[in-house]
Amino acid sequence: MTAVWPRVDELGLLTDLYELNMAQAYHLDGKSGEAVFSLFYRVLPGQRNYVVACGQEHAARLITELRFPEEQVRRLAPLGFRDEFLDWLADFRFSGEVRVVPEGSLVFPQEPLLELRAPVAEGQLLESLLMNYVNLETLLASKAARVVQAAAGIPVLDFGMRRMHGLEAAWRSVRAYRVAGIGATSNVLGGLSFDLPLRGTMAHSYIQSFDREIDAFRRYAQDYPGTTLLVDTYDSLAAVDKVIGLVRDEGLDVGAVRIDSGDLVAQARAARDKLDAAGLNGVRVVVSGGLDEWKVADLVAAGAPIDGFGVGTEMGSVADAPSLDFAYKLTEYQGRPRLKASPGKPIYPGAKQVWRHYDGEGRLAGDTLTGADEERDGQPLLRTVVANGELAVPAPDADAARRRLAGELAALPDAWRGTARAETPYPVTFSDALEDLRKRTLDRLP
Amino acid sequence: MTAVWPRVDELGLLTDLYELNMAQAYHLDGKSGEAVFSLFYRVLPGQRNYVVACGQEHAARLITELRFPEEQVRRLAPLGFRDEFLDWLADFRFSGEVRVVPEGSLVFPQEPLLELRAPVAEGQLLESLLMNYVNLETLLASKAARVVQAAAGIPVLDFGMRRMHGLEAAWRSVRAYRVAGIGATSNVLGGLSFDLPLRGTMAHSYIQSFDREIDAFRRYAQDYPGTTLLVDTYDSLAAVDKVIGLVRDEGLDVGAVRIDSGDLVAQARAARDKLDAAGLNGVRVVVSGGLDEWKVADLVAAGAPIDGFGVGTEMGSVADAPSLDFAYKLTEYQGRPRLKASPGKPIYPGAKQVWRHYDGEGRLAGDTLTGADEERDGQPLLRTVVANGELAVPAPDADAARRRLAGELAALPDAWRGTARAETPYPVTFSDALEDLRKRTLDRLP
Repeated sequence: MTAVWPRVDELGLLTDLYELNMAQAYHLDGKSGEAVFSLFYRVLPGQRNYVVACGQEHAARLITELRFPEEQVRRLAPLGFRDEFLDWLADFRFSGEVRVVPEGSLVFPQEPLLELRAPVAEGQLLESLLMNYVNLETLLASKAARVVQAAAGIPVLDFGMRRMHGLEAAWRSVRAYRVAGIGATSNVLGGLSFDLPLRGTMAHSYIQSFDREIDAFRRYAQDYPGTTLLVDTYDSLAAVDKVIGLVRDEGLDVGAVRIDSGDLVAQARAARDKLDAAGLNGVRVVVSGGLDEWKVADLVAAGAPIDGFGVGTEMGSVADAPSLDFAYKLTEYQGRPRLKASPGKPIYPGAKQVWRHYDGEGRLAGDTLTGADEERDGQPLLRTVVANGELAVPAPDADAARRRLAGELAALPDAWRGTARAETPYPVTFSDALEDLRKRTLDRLP
Repeated sequence: MTAVWPRVDELGLLTDLYELNMAQAYHLDGKSGEAVFSLFYRVLPGQRNYVVACGQEHAARLITELRFPEEQVRRLAPLGFRDEFLDWLADFRFSGEVRVVPEGSLVFPQEPLLELRAPVAEGQLLESLLMNYVNLETLLASKAARVVQAAAGIPVLDFGMRRMHGLEAAWRSVRAYRVAGIGATSNVLGGLSFDLPLRGTMAHSYIQSFDREIDAFRRYAQDYPGTTLLVDTYDSLAAVDKVIGLVRDEGLDVGAVRIDSGDLVAQARAARDKLDAAGLNGVRVVVSGGLDEWKVADLVAAGAPIDGFGVGTEMGSVADAPSLDFAYKLTEYQGRPRLKASPGKPIYPGAKQVWRHYDGEGRLAGDTLTGADEERDGQPLLRTVVANGELAVPAPDADAARRRLAGELAALPDAWRGTARAETPYPVTFSDALEDLRKRTLDRLP
């Protein structure tokens, strides 16, 4: 069959060449010291006030299972790799420790989502795979959480599959959406795989295939009692009248009408008025078409009588901020803190812990980053999920992550919950010991 | 193993629920008439003057192979689908015709990249998969072609894997980049799979793992003669001096230095001056770090002495325009043209052909869209790749697509080749017969 994605046994080769080059150099030079690598982002993109950590537990599982089968290793020989390194690759099993923050946690700049402690060649080898893997779900969950917040309790439906960057992104998006609090998805395999309810309406093409719109409506409502009928193929309000006729005069069961274009506030109001005037208060009004968190917030603010938002392109392509500036930095080697010079982009050395503080009313009150072995009041976020190369926890649970995120967002002060960038960022401070370590490390830079 | 992507036999379920609902409705209602579906985009996004069609030949192959194994079909039963539809799905084999423009073609708004003619249920069923599949490669090739044009002959290297939307996107990107004229990639599996040269340098972490930068440089150049050394970990110009010492005094073979941050024009000049003053004219200067087509164009315009651009995040996430407004529209059913009302977004009914015109000097002179059976002077772009559900052509050839794109871009007048939106769009006209058909179809809308 035409290759759709790589074979799972090829996954180790889905990396940047320099990771293999560096791993070989470490190996050939006998540099087997233990390193700490930290995965974090530096700057909040777009109008974000927070990022939702997602995918890092799956990524940690993945690296415990990563192998380089002989057949794959052989493909590297023509690139000039040495036999002794290829033998090492063929025997590769991750042997280190991974700590992650729980999926569904809010994370702020500089806070590690994942820290890995392992022989330096192992940690280096996993960089590209880890970054790519965590990038996707974190991007999607972060965007979707904003849309859900903007919708203020009105259900958000995912319609984004067609506009995502490939099939895997479309599939995995549903897991991120489940964590983010999306109510349902149109994505069949995604919904079945990640246990998010499925919703489907109809496309314009179905209606166009009939000579009369009302015949399409009648047939679809007969086939799918309770379905949602798309009303904007020709004239939305005339179509609402047809729906009313079918429900009132023919007794058909229609759950909702969907409006996909035009002035959504005006059309939703007009549709609602018509439905209510006909006594069809139970028929819902769903809107879609180019929605993002700002448009959803505007519709909510306008008090438009909307019962559901179908959101696709903008959420699925993360249109306003389609990448995060994740970094995967060596912060310690052979027990000594490490840094690179980075004017204007402070980086802190060493293994860390993130402490989340709550005030007396249970509201989020700021985070402190400390060295990994410092203690603080508050909730420590990084916990060990892989030890000695073996999984130390059960499989990640998207439901727990969804509850965690909902809890954190409910506890987040209003200033940081909206769609606009807050005047002051959520407070993240660094322990004196960490500041001190940073100064000493910078003073010692070559 | 932790699931990384769906199994290939699950691919049919990677669709929007409404596709299955509509297909079932057509099936149950005995609506087996032949339909034409057209995949095109309506509006050029961002500053684009053109889009590069990519992925549509692969997508066409894919649908000839698409099956719904019994085990997968059974997963749909709890969603309420009827047995007779599930039986139809289990027997599904695409039976229709697919026409596509050649991969690597420039395509403009309204021009079909793909047209499909099949029983309406089949065409409907394939919508989400086709749109998602073509979206990714077309997005990436379109963006990368702009970067390559901006680089004006200086090689562009792909460093984007870590910032792409998942693993499949990272893998398939390399095929799109090959078509777009990217010179090399860091993506090992992508390069091996799609025959693009691999390039790798080193990361800051490698240097940080040494106590002295020069020791890292020495070791890496010994292990990888001709390699590229990353000079901005601590102080770029001091690092260039170290490189010069290693080459001149120790006879090491260094191919290039890479600068990844700071004022790239000033640093590239200073590095070049130092290298030239030391007689090392053969050591190249490569830059990276947040580059996109505009920054590349600025560096070229400034005359910075740069021998290669490493481009990652912006190109890989298609940051300025991460989605295209692809539409997959029913344009004909049972031999009759079909349209939906779309104020401000003209759509043309019926099966079509795209004719590309060249002037006497071989330059692109505009396109004409006609009905599928009209004739024009010029090059017809849509050709049949699937007939009666069977492949009618050999496997798509990324090299041929690369040559095609290079030829079209060379023939494209300057006005549409730059990074900014041209004042007037590339001329695309519609035949009188098509305009006429549109009017008649609109007049007959329900």
